[in-house]
Amino acid sequence: MLNLASDTPPDWAERASGALDEILLDHAHCEKKAAGGALRLLFSYPNQVFLQRPLAELAQEELTHFQQLLDILDVRGIPFERQKPSPYAGRLHALVEPKEPRRLTDLLLVCALIEARSCERMKCLAEAPIDPELQSFYKDLLASEARHHQVYVELACQVEAPEVVRSRLQELAEIEARILEEGGPDVRLHS
Amino acid sequence: MLNLASDTPPDWAERASGALDEILLDHAHCEKKAAGGALRLLFSYPNQVFLQRPLAELAQEELTHFQQLLDILDVRGIPFERQKPSPYAGRLHALVEPKEPRRLTDLLLVCALIEARSCERMKCLAEAPIDPELQSFYKDLLASEARHHQVYVELACQVEAPEVVRSRLQELAEIEARILEEGGPDVRLHS
Repeated sequence: MLNLASDTPPDWAERASGALDEILLDHAHCEKKAAGGALRLLFSYPNQVFLQRPLAELAQEELTHFQQLLDILDVRGIPFERQKPSPYAGRLHALVEPKEPRRLTDLLLVCALIEARSCERMKCLAEAPIDPELQSFYKDLLASEARHHQVYVELACQVEAPEVVRSRLQELAEIEARILEEGGPDVRLHS
Repeated sequence: MLNLASDTPPDWAERASGALDEILLDHAHCEKKAAGGALRLLFSYPNQVFLQRPLAELAQEELTHFQQLLDILDVRGIPFERQKPSPYAGRLHALVEPKEPRRLTDLLLVCALIEARSCERMKCLAEAPIDPELQSFYKDLLASEARHHQVYVELACQVEAPEVVRSRLQELAEIEARILEEGGPDVRLHS
């Protein structure tokens, strides 16, 4: 359902649980970036009416999650501040082909994959040996990440034929899995 | 309360009522840009924690208004599409001083003035001889625009001393009035 080409290895949840402050701060930034990404698509494609409403709604939900994360950071005394992001999203966006309509399909599918991986990682956190309140926060959140994945895939299917989208999604998902495997220097939601 | 240095002349509402389709389309774009502007501030100033929550909330409200405008456009059969914006916001942003902390104060006050003028113009529309449903839509909306104005001014008062902010706001408001007086080629919410 999430169209991912790999499962997160079990040691990720262990490393994440051991660096929970960093993960929570990264997660806050990720929610803000997810909202920003959805809005950027609306500005880049003002004439694609079908994008406007679903992506405006999606951005609103991401902003709600962002505020929930700010609350969690507050309660735990973790200052909200700039943090080095993982190279993941940047490397995925570098895969976007420059020519339309493929560019828009790719932009939507990259967002779809980021949402899917977030969902899969949140499931890991919901099952990790962390504070039960955080576990249940992640349990609640992963349903909406899965829905966002679906929204992006469905929008892509309005740009190109569904079978073309499916095959491109599989292609990108395989590269996404390799990007994650190569990892980055820090423990992050997408590391 | 809105800290504006001029009142909209009565003929604006007349011109706006005569070009309502254009005004409604412009208004939809303005709401989206207001959300985008608030988010941009969050990305430009990740270490200014006091901005994060209020501007995330404000962006969410602007996105709700954006979707309301999309509904209104739909009902009236006005296609949502790219539209030449008025030069207003660009000319206001050109006034932002490059050096901090004044830069952030100015960015917040420019947003404050745009919200204030939107509010004042919406009051004109609420009283203009247009469809009563639209009148009451504008009546509902202007309260939140006034609140947004206040939010931006209060945030600016966390950057510089309130009396410094008041005096800079007055300065910018006078230029804002001149920019509007010079006008632009098209009928817009801020023309």
